[in-house]
Amino acid sequence: MKIVIIGAVAGGASAAARARRLDEDAEIILIERGPEPSFANCGLPYYVGGEIQARDKLLVAPTSLLRQRHRLDVRTRHEVVAIDRDNASVTIKDLQTGEVSTETYDKLIISTGASPFRPPLRGIDHPDVLELRDLDDADQMHARVATDGSSSAVIVGAGFIGIEVAENLARRGIEVTVVELAEQILPPWDAEMVRPLEQHLRDQGVRLKLQNSAESFRDSKTEEGRLVVTLQTGEEIHSSFAVVCIGVRPESGLAAEAGIDCGPRGGIVTNEHMQTSDPNIYAVGDVAQVKDFVTGDPTQIPLAGPANRQGRIAADHIFGRDSTYRGTQGTAVVGVFGKTAAMTGLSEKMLQRSGRSYQKIYIHPNDHAGYYPGATQMTLKLLFDPENGRIWGAQAVGTHGVDKRIDVIAMAIQAGLTVDDLEEVELCYAPQYGSAKDPINMAGFVAAGALRGDHAVVHWSDLEQSTADMSILLDVRTEQEFARGHLPDAINIPLEVLRSQISELPRDRKLVCYCQVGQRGYMATRILQQRGFDAVNLSGGYRLVSQSG
Amino acid sequence: MKIVIIGAVAGGASAAARARRLDEDAEIILIERGPEPSFANCGLPYYVGGEIQARDKLLVAPTSLLRQRHRLDVRTRHEVVAIDRDNASVTIKDLQTGEVSTETYDKLIISTGASPFRPPLRGIDHPDVLELRDLDDADQMHARVATDGSSSAVIVGAGFIGIEVAENLARRGIEVTVVELAEQILPPWDAEMVRPLEQHLRDQGVRLKLQNSAESFRDSKTEEGRLVVTLQTGEEIHSSFAVVCIGVRPESGLAAEAGIDCGPRGGIVTNEHMQTSDPNIYAVGDVAQVKDFVTGDPTQIPLAGPANRQGRIAADHIFGRDSTYRGTQGTAVVGVFGKTAAMTGLSEKMLQRSGRSYQKIYIHPNDHAGYYPGATQMTLKLLFDPENGRIWGAQAVGTHGVDKRIDVIAMAIQAGLTVDDLEEVELCYAPQYGSAKDPINMAGFVAAGALRGDHAVVHWSDLEQSTADMSILLDVRTEQEFARGHLPDAINIPLEVLRSQISELPRDRKLVCYCQVGQRGYMATRILQQRGFDAVNLSGGYRLVSQSG
Repeated sequence: MKIVIIGAVAGGASAAARARRLDEDAEIILIERGPEPSFANCGLPYYVGGEIQARDKLLVAPTSLLRQRHRLDVRTRHEVVAIDRDNASVTIKDLQTGEVSTETYDKLIISTGASPFRPPLRGIDHPDVLELRDLDDADQMHARVATDGSSSAVIVGAGFIGIEVAENLARRGIEVTVVELAEQILPPWDAEMVRPLEQHLRDQGVRLKLQNSAESFRDSKTEEGRLVVTLQTGEEIHSSFAVVCIGVRPESGLAAEAGIDCGPRGGIVTNEHMQTSDPNIYAVGDVAQVKDFVTGDPTQIPLAGPANRQGRIAADHIFGRDSTYRGTQGTAVVGVFGKTAAMTGLSEKMLQRSGRSYQKIYIHPNDHAGYYPGATQMTLKLLFDPENGRIWGAQAVGTHGVDKRIDVIAMAIQAGLTVDDLEEVELCYAPQYGSAKDPINMAGFVAAGALRGDHAVVHWSDLEQSTADMSILLDVRTEQEFARGHLPDAINIPLEVLRSQISELPRDRKLVCYCQVGQRGYMATRILQQRGFDAVNLSGGYRLVSQSG
Repeated sequence: MKIVIIGAVAGGASAAARARRLDEDAEIILIERGPEPSFANCGLPYYVGGEIQARDKLLVAPTSLLRQRHRLDVRTRHEVVAIDRDNASVTIKDLQTGEVSTETYDKLIISTGASPFRPPLRGIDHPDVLELRDLDDADQMHARVATDGSSSAVIVGAGFIGIEVAENLARRGIEVTVVELAEQILPPWDAEMVRPLEQHLRDQGVRLKLQNSAESFRDSKTEEGRLVVTLQTGEEIHSSFAVVCIGVRPESGLAAEAGIDCGPRGGIVTNEHMQTSDPNIYAVGDVAQVKDFVTGDPTQIPLAGPANRQGRIAADHIFGRDSTYRGTQGTAVVGVFGKTAAMTGLSEKMLQRSGRSYQKIYIHPNDHAGYYPGATQMTLKLLFDPENGRIWGAQAVGTHGVDKRIDVIAMAIQAGLTVDDLEEVELCYAPQYGSAKDPINMAGFVAAGALRGDHAVVHWSDLEQSTADMSILLDVRTEQEFARGHLPDAINIPLEVLRSQISELPRDRKLVCYCQVGQRGYMATRILQQRGFDAVNLSGGYRLVSQSG
C-alpha cells in the first residue's frame, strides 16, 4: 500500500501516524509545503504574544520524530501542484530547488487545510498587511512585535483568530484596533452572548470598530514605516501593520482541478469515511466539507479536533476498517484576557437560518458554590427543540468553569440527550468545583420547566417588539437593587413582600416579572400564576438585558 | 395539602422550596434539629480551615428567607421524636423549652440525613473527640483551631470528609495525623489511583497511618489538656483533639420505629418517586436507600447533589407529577492542597465485588496542550464492559482539569454511552483549555483499541502475578529515561531504533513493552505484532507503576 498525503498538519499528520500503526509495510509519503510538519497552529497567536516563549514548542511532531518513530517519508518545502487521477499520481514541486517529480499512489489523502481569505482590496498586498496561518507568518509577526518596535496594529475580522491575535498583540503592549463587518465580535455566536467579551476587550484597551470594514491599505505619506488603513466609514487608522483574519477558504483548488467534487463553499465533498467523489482519494480537515452533527446538513467548520479524528478515520478506512465520521458539532472555545467563551452545537442564529423551531433559556450561575471564595458568575444560554427537549446547542461566557460546562453539554449533544437529562445528570460537587445544583442541572431545570409550562418565560428581544401589549414590568428585586438601575417603566415589588401586596396588582394586564438573574423572577411568576395572574418571567433577568447593552 | 418535612438541609430544603413553587396554598412545615436550616454542610471543613472566613456564608438559605420567600413554617431547634402513621401525625419536641406537640400531615418527607458513625471505643465520648457534621460541630472545631491554640489533631478515617478535614487543619498550621483502617486513603477508590494523593498529603506534612485504627482515647497524665489516641499497633499519639470521620449511618431510627422498611445498611427503602413503604411518607438524601444508577442495585451514597434532586422529586410526586429518580451514580470530587481527585460510576473494587466483568485502561494526559505553558499531567482510569464497551466508571487525579473530564464521563454514563462515543466526542479545544485530542478522546482511543484488539494491553498487577511466564520487559523509552529508573529486569530498546534492532529480539518469548505513559509502548507493540511477535503494552506505563508505589 502506497499512501500519499498532501499537507502534514493536524489531519494529515494524524492520518500518517494512524496508517503506520495499522501497517508497518505501507509506504507513506507526507508532503508539506511549509518548513515543518505537524506544527501547533492553534498556538501561533500565543507564540506571537509571548505566552509560548520557545518556538520549538510549536513543533509538536518534528520531521525527525515522524521519520524515526513512524518511518514516514516526510518532504517539507514540497508542494503537490497537480493530481492525475487517471494515472493515480501527483506532481510534486520542490519549493527550494524548483525541481518537479511524480509519485504514484494507491490512496491519496488531501489535507491542504484552508487559507485566510484576502479580499481584493486596494493595497491588500502591501507588505505590512499580514495574516496568521503558518510558522512563516508567525515568525514574521513575532519579529515585528518582539524586536522591530511595532507599536500598533489593525486586526481586520473579529472571529476566533482575530480575537486571539488582538489579545496577544495587546499583551505585547501593541495598541490594537479590531475592525469587524458584523455588529458583533465572533459572528457565528449570538450577539447578546458576546457583549460581555466586547466590553472586556474594550476594558483592556482594545478598540473595536464594529459594523465597519477595511477598504484600503497604503503607506503613510507623513510618517515613515506607517501603514494607513482606511475604513468604510472613511476613518483612517495609522498603524505599524495590519492582520487580515476575515475567515478562511478551503484550499481545494488542486482537487477541483482534478475533477473532484467540491461543495458550494469550496470544501471537498466527503462521505462518512472521508472519501471524496474519487474513492481512492480522501479529504480531511479544514479542506473537507463534512456533515453537521446536529442538523445533518453539509458544513465546513475549521477545527483541530475534528481534523485529527478525520485523519484517523481516513487511515482506518484505507486499511479496510469501517470507521465513520459522525459529523462536526462546532464545539469551540476562546480565551480573552482571562475570560472564556465557549459554544457547542447550533446558535440561535444558525437555528433561525435553518428554519428549525427552538426554545431558549439563559442562566447566570456561579462556577462554584457561592459560599466558597472566588466564585464567578457565568452566563449560559441553552437552545433546545420545543417538541422533545432535544438539545440544539449552548453558549457560555464567564471567567471560570465555562469550558467544563460546554464540554458536558457537548457530550450530551453527542448522545442526543434532552434537557431532562441535564436536570438529572450527577456531576462533581465540592464547593471549590461546582454546586450541589450544578449550572448544568440549573440549565436543565429552567429549560425543562419552560417546556413543561411550569416556568413561563419571555425574552427581552420579544418584549421589545411587543411593548404595545400593555404588560407591566414587575421588578421583584430589593429596593436597593432597583435603585441602582432597572428596566424603563418597571415597578418594584420585592419578592419578599409580593404576597402581601398582591391585591394591588391589576388582573387584566400581563405581568412580566424580572429579577437580577431569573430565579426570584421565577418564584414571583409561580406565585402570581397560582393566584390567577397572567405572569411570565424575563429569562436571564436584568443582568442579561444590561450586559447585552 | 399539609406537608411536614423532617430535616431542613439539602434534600429537605429543596423539597420545601419545590413544594411551595408547586402550590401556594400548601401548608409546609420544616422541622430542623439544628440552629439553622439549609446550611452548606459541604463547606464546613473550609470554614474550619479559614478558607471560608465568614460563618454567615454557610447559611445558604437562612430562616428569614425561607419564611418570607417561600412562606415556610420553619422550626429550628425542634426535633421529631415519633411518627404515628395510623393518625398521620408526628410528635415534635422543642429542644429549647422541652415542650412537646403534635402535627398531623398529609405527606411526610424524612430528610434526617446520616450521622457520623462513632464506634464503641474506650474514651470515644471524651470531649476532645470531635466529629464534623453540623454547624455546632464546625463552631466547636473552629474555636479550637482559630482561638484555643490547638496544635495537633488525629483524624480517624481517611474518607472524603477525613481528607478535607486533614487538609483544612493542616492549613491552619495544625500537625495532622490521619489513621485509616484500609491500606489506602479514600477506601471506595482503587488504591493505585490515590497513591499520588497520599504522597501529596505526606509532602504537605500530613502523617498517614494506614492499615491502622484508633483503639482508645484518654487524657494524657503528663501533659495537661492533651488527648492520647492509642492505635491498634500500640502507638500512642498525643494531640490537642481527634476527629472521628469513619463514615456515616443513615438516621433512620425514627422511620424504623414507625415500621417503615429500612435496608440492610439502615437506609430507608424508597421507590423511584422517593416514596417509602408508606406511600404518604417519602425519604430523601443521605437517610434514603436508592438505586445505583449503573448497576441498578440498592445503594447508599451520601452526596449533596442527589439529595437536592431527590427532594425536588418527592415534592413533584406529592403534587401528582410523575418525576422519577434515576439512581445515584457516585460522582464525587475532593481537593487536597491543590490536587484534585474525582470519580464517577463504579470503581474496579466495586466491579470485582459485584462480580461484573470489566476491562480497564490508564492514561496520563496533559490537562491542556503540552506546548502551552502550565500544562500538568493527570492520571485517568477508565473502566468499561468488555462485551459492549459500555462505560462502568472512571477515576482521575491531577492538578487541573480533572473535574471537567470526570463530569464529561459522568454525562456519558448518564447516557449509557460506550468508549467509542468517547473517541468521537467533540470537546472545547484551544491550547489553554485542552488538546485537539482531549484526554476524553484519548481514553476512548485507548479503550476502544484495547476492545478491538488493536492495542493489546497488560496490567502491572497481572504481570506481577505471572512473572513465571518468561516474558521480556522491553523499555522503549530513551536511554536517558531508562537510566533514571526502570522496571526490574527490563531491557532498553528506544522506540526510535526498535525497527533496526528487531532481529535481536527472541520470537519465542512474550514481549511486554512499556514507556513512560503508554503511547510509545503502544507504537512499539503495533510494530512488533505486525512483525509476528507476541507483544503487549503495559497500560499506564512506567509512570503508573512508579506512582502506585
